[in-house]
Amino acid sequence: MSDQKIPDYLAENQDRFLEELKEYLRIPSISTDSERKEDVARCAEWVAEHLKGIGIDDVQIEQTPGHPIVYAEHCKAPGKPTILVYGHYDVQPPDPLELWETPPFEPTVRDGKIFARGATDDKGQLFAHFKGLEAHLKTAGELPVNVKLLIEGEEEVGSPNLTPWVVANKERLACDAVVISDSSMFAPGMPTLTYGLRGLTYFEVTVQGPDHDLHSGLFGGTVPNPINELAKIIAQLHDKDGRVAIPGFYDDVIPLTPDEREQFAKLPFDDEKFRAQTGAPGLCGEVGYTTLERKWARPTLDCNGIWGGFIGEGAKTVLPSTASAKISCRLVPGQDPEKVFDLARDYIEGLAPDTVKLTFLPHHGGDPVLTDRDNDQVRAASRALKKSWGVDPVFTRGGGSIPVVATFANELKSPTILMGLGLDDDRLHSPNEKFNLECFYKGIETSAYLWDEL
Amino acid sequence: MSDQKIPDYLAENQDRFLEELKEYLRIPSISTDSERKEDVARCAEWVAEHLKGIGIDDVQIEQTPGHPIVYAEHCKAPGKPTILVYGHYDVQPPDPLELWETPPFEPTVRDGKIFARGATDDKGQLFAHFKGLEAHLKTAGELPVNVKLLIEGEEEVGSPNLTPWVVANKERLACDAVVISDSSMFAPGMPTLTYGLRGLTYFEVTVQGPDHDLHSGLFGGTVPNPINELAKIIAQLHDKDGRVAIPGFYDDVIPLTPDEREQFAKLPFDDEKFRAQTGAPGLCGEVGYTTLERKWARPTLDCNGIWGGFIGEGAKTVLPSTASAKISCRLVPGQDPEKVFDLARDYIEGLAPDTVKLTFLPHHGGDPVLTDRDNDQVRAASRALKKSWGVDPVFTRGGGSIPVVATFANELKSPTILMGLGLDDDRLHSPNEKFNLECFYKGIETSAYLWDEL
Repeated sequence: MSDQKIPDYLAENQDRFLEELKEYLRIPSISTDSERKEDVARCAEWVAEHLKGIGIDDVQIEQTPGHPIVYAEHCKAPGKPTILVYGHYDVQPPDPLELWETPPFEPTVRDGKIFARGATDDKGQLFAHFKGLEAHLKTAGELPVNVKLLIEGEEEVGSPNLTPWVVANKERLACDAVVISDSSMFAPGMPTLTYGLRGLTYFEVTVQGPDHDLHSGLFGGTVPNPINELAKIIAQLHDKDGRVAIPGFYDDVIPLTPDEREQFAKLPFDDEKFRAQTGAPGLCGEVGYTTLERKWARPTLDCNGIWGGFIGEGAKTVLPSTASAKISCRLVPGQDPEKVFDLARDYIEGLAPDTVKLTFLPHHGGDPVLTDRDNDQVRAASRALKKSWGVDPVFTRGGGSIPVVATFANELKSPTILMGLGLDDDRLHSPNEKFNLECFYKGIETSAYLWDEL
Repeated sequence: MSDQKIPDYLAENQDRFLEELKEYLRIPSISTDSERKEDVARCAEWVAEHLKGIGIDDVQIEQTPGHPIVYAEHCKAPGKPTILVYGHYDVQPPDPLELWETPPFEPTVRDGKIFARGATDDKGQLFAHFKGLEAHLKTAGELPVNVKLLIEGEEEVGSPNLTPWVVANKERLACDAVVISDSSMFAPGMPTLTYGLRGLTYFEVTVQGPDHDLHSGLFGGTVPNPINELAKIIAQLHDKDGRVAIPGFYDDVIPLTPDEREQFAKLPFDDEKFRAQTGAPGLCGEVGYTTLERKWARPTLDCNGIWGGFIGEGAKTVLPSTASAKISCRLVPGQDPEKVFDLARDYIEGLAPDTVKLTFLPHHGGDPVLTDRDNDQVRAASRALKKSWGVDPVFTRGGGSIPVVATFANELKSPTILMGLGLDDDRLHSPNEKFNLECFYKGIETSAYLWDEL
C-alpha cells in the first residue's frame, strides 16, 4: 500500500468525519441517569449501524441487565494477530448545566476544538478508531489483522455488567492484544503510551442526627447537627501532611521505582502551568511527592459531593436531620477497592459520636493497573504513533481509572495498549468538555497505520 | 359582661373558626421565595379583609420595598391603655416536600391537631387573637382598650423592611404594651410567658478551589478540594467541649443568674423525653449547662445547609470547583449580630489555606431580647392566661428569635408580652408543622379575656 493513500483519504474525508462525530455526540447517552435509558439504547444502535456502514463484518447488539454492549468482529486474516478494540459510548452527566458555553449535547466547533459532553471521553477517541478502520478498509480493501470491537454503555457507572459478559464470552474475545483510547497524551504533540492506571473506591456516607428537620432556635445547641458531625469526620480523613489518615490505607501500595520517578522527572512538566489550568489559587497534596507522582501514582481521597439541610435561596433556620457526602479514593497498584472501602468504613464508624447514626452506600470500584512497557504490541503502537505524529511516544501513567483493563488482564491474559488521544485540559467530566480536532485527525491516522504495524 | 358569654360564643363558633383558619393556611405565603410574591400579597389582602370582617375599625395595607405590612387600628377607648398586637402572615418554605404526610398548603386535621405550613408559626397563633378580638367585640359590643395590629409578611426573612417602617411610624404605633404570640408554651396545659429570646447571625460561606469542576482521576491529589477544605473549617468551629471556638464569641454574653438557673431547674423537663421528641440517638451541647440552659440561654453555632459537587443519583468522579455552607449562630443577650458575624468571618478566613478562595454572604440577623418579668401588663396577661387555662403561667426564655421585639423595645419604648400558644413539638420550620386545636381554642379564649384584664 502506498504511504500516501491513507493521508489522502483522510484529507478528502475529514469534514464528513467531523459531521459524523457531531451526530454521535448529539445522543445524550448518560448511563447514570435512569431517565436516559432510551437515549443510551439509541446510542448503541447508532454505533452498531455506523460500524456496519464502514464495512465491519459482523456487528451485534448484546443485551445486558443494564445498558447494551455493541460487539463486532472483522476476522478475515487467518494466522494473523487478533486485536480487540475497547471503548465506551456512554457519557458522564453534564451538570452543572449553567456553566456550559454551548449546550452539552449540541456539539460546537470553536478554535479548532469540538465542545460537547463525550467529545473526548470516550466518543471522540473511540470514533477515531472507527475512522482509522474505515480509512484502512477503503484504501487497502482489507485489514491485515483480525479486529474485534467491544463497546460498552456503562463505563461511567463502573461497568457493572461488563466483567460477567467478558467472562461468559472469553473464547469469543480471545485476542493477542487490547487497544484502548480512553486516556490522555502527555502534552499536545507528544504521543503517549500509558502503562499504569489508578483504581477507584466510591461510596456515600449519610449522617443522621434528629429523625426530622428541627427549628434551630428551639433545638439548636442541644442535639447533634449532622452537617457539623459530617464535617468533623471529613476533616479527619487527611493528616496535616496531606496523607490519607485511614489506618492501613497505604499498606498494600506498590511504591514507585527510582527508575519511574526519574522518568517522570524528565518529562516537561510545569507546576505553575498546571495550576493555571485548574484555576486553583494553589496546588497541594501528599508531602514528599511531585505533582506528576501525586496524580499518577499515589492514592488519594476526595469528596465528590456533599449535601444536607436547606440549600435554596435565602436563609432557613433549620437544624437538618441528615447530611451526606460522596467520597472516592483513587487507588494505585497493589490496593484492593473492597479492602479500602472496608478500611474507610471502619475508620469513619470509629470517628462518629454515638449521638448520630451512619449509613454507607458503596458505589462501583475498579482495580488499579500496571502493564508492560515493552513487548511486540507496544512496539507496533509506538511505530504507528511515530508515523502519524513524527516523534517517538513517551511512557506515562494515568490518574484515572479504566477498570476493564484489569478485567482483560485477568480474564483474557492479553496485554493492553493504552493509546490516549485526549489532552489533560479536555475538561472531561466537567462543563465544556472538548476534543482538539488535531488530536482527532492524528488519532484517525494513527489508527489507520496501527493495523499494518501490528 | 357575664363571664359565660365568651365561652358560649367560642363554643358556638369554633367550627367556623377552624374553617377560616384553613382558608388562611391554604395561601402559600412563602416570603423567601421570589416566585411566591403574588401569593404573599394575596395573603396580606386576606388578612386585611378578615380584620374588616370582624369589625376592626381602620385597616390598611402598607406597601414596603418587600412584602406589604397589614396595619389596623381600633381605638375607641379614650384614656384607656393602647395595646399593639404584632404577628406575621408569611411562612417558611415547606421543603423537603416529600416528608409531608399531607401537603403543606392543604390544611388537614388529624388527632386534634391541624397540619399545615404556618399552622403554628405564625398564622394559627395570630389568628387566635383575631378570633379573641371578634369574640370580645361580638359579645361585649366594644373593646375596653385601644388595639393596634401590626402584621408583617417578612418575619421569616428577617423583617428587613419592618424596622424602617416602625421608625417612620413611631407616633402612629405609640402604645403601652406589645402583645406577641409567636412562641411556645413550656408544655401542654402550662400557659407560658416568655421573657427572653435568642438573637441570630446568619451567613453563607463559599470555598473555591479550582475555577471549574475537574476529573478526580486526572487531578485528584494535586489540587485543593473545596468540600474537604470546607469540612476542615466547619470542624474547627467548635472545640471538644461543644463550645463555639470563634475567638471572642462569648465575650459579651450576659450570664444566666443563679435565680434563673434555679427557676429553670424547677420546671418539669425530662431530657430523655426531649431526646425522643427529636429522634436523635443522643443529646449533646456545651459542657457545663443543662439542656434547657443550652436551648434558651446559651449561644450556638449550627450549619443549616451544605452543598457542593455532584449530589445526584449514582457516582460522578468530579473534583468540584466550590462548596458552600449556610451557617447561623443563635445569640443571647449581650451579643451583637454584626459583631459576631465579623468575628466568625475573621476566624474562618484565618482557618482557610491559601490554596482556596473564600466568599461570604451575610443574611439577616436579629438582636437577642430580655424583658421584665414583672409589670402591669405582664400581670394582666397572667390573669387572662389563668382564667382560660385554670393555672398560673410559668416564666421561660425561648431559643428562637423574634427580632422585632428588640425594635419595639428600642423604638417604641414599650414592654413586650410574649404569650406563646404553640408547643415545642409543633415542627415549625419542618415538614408536618402542626398546631394543637386545644391551643388554638384556649388561645382564642385567652385573647378574648386579655382586653378586659389589660
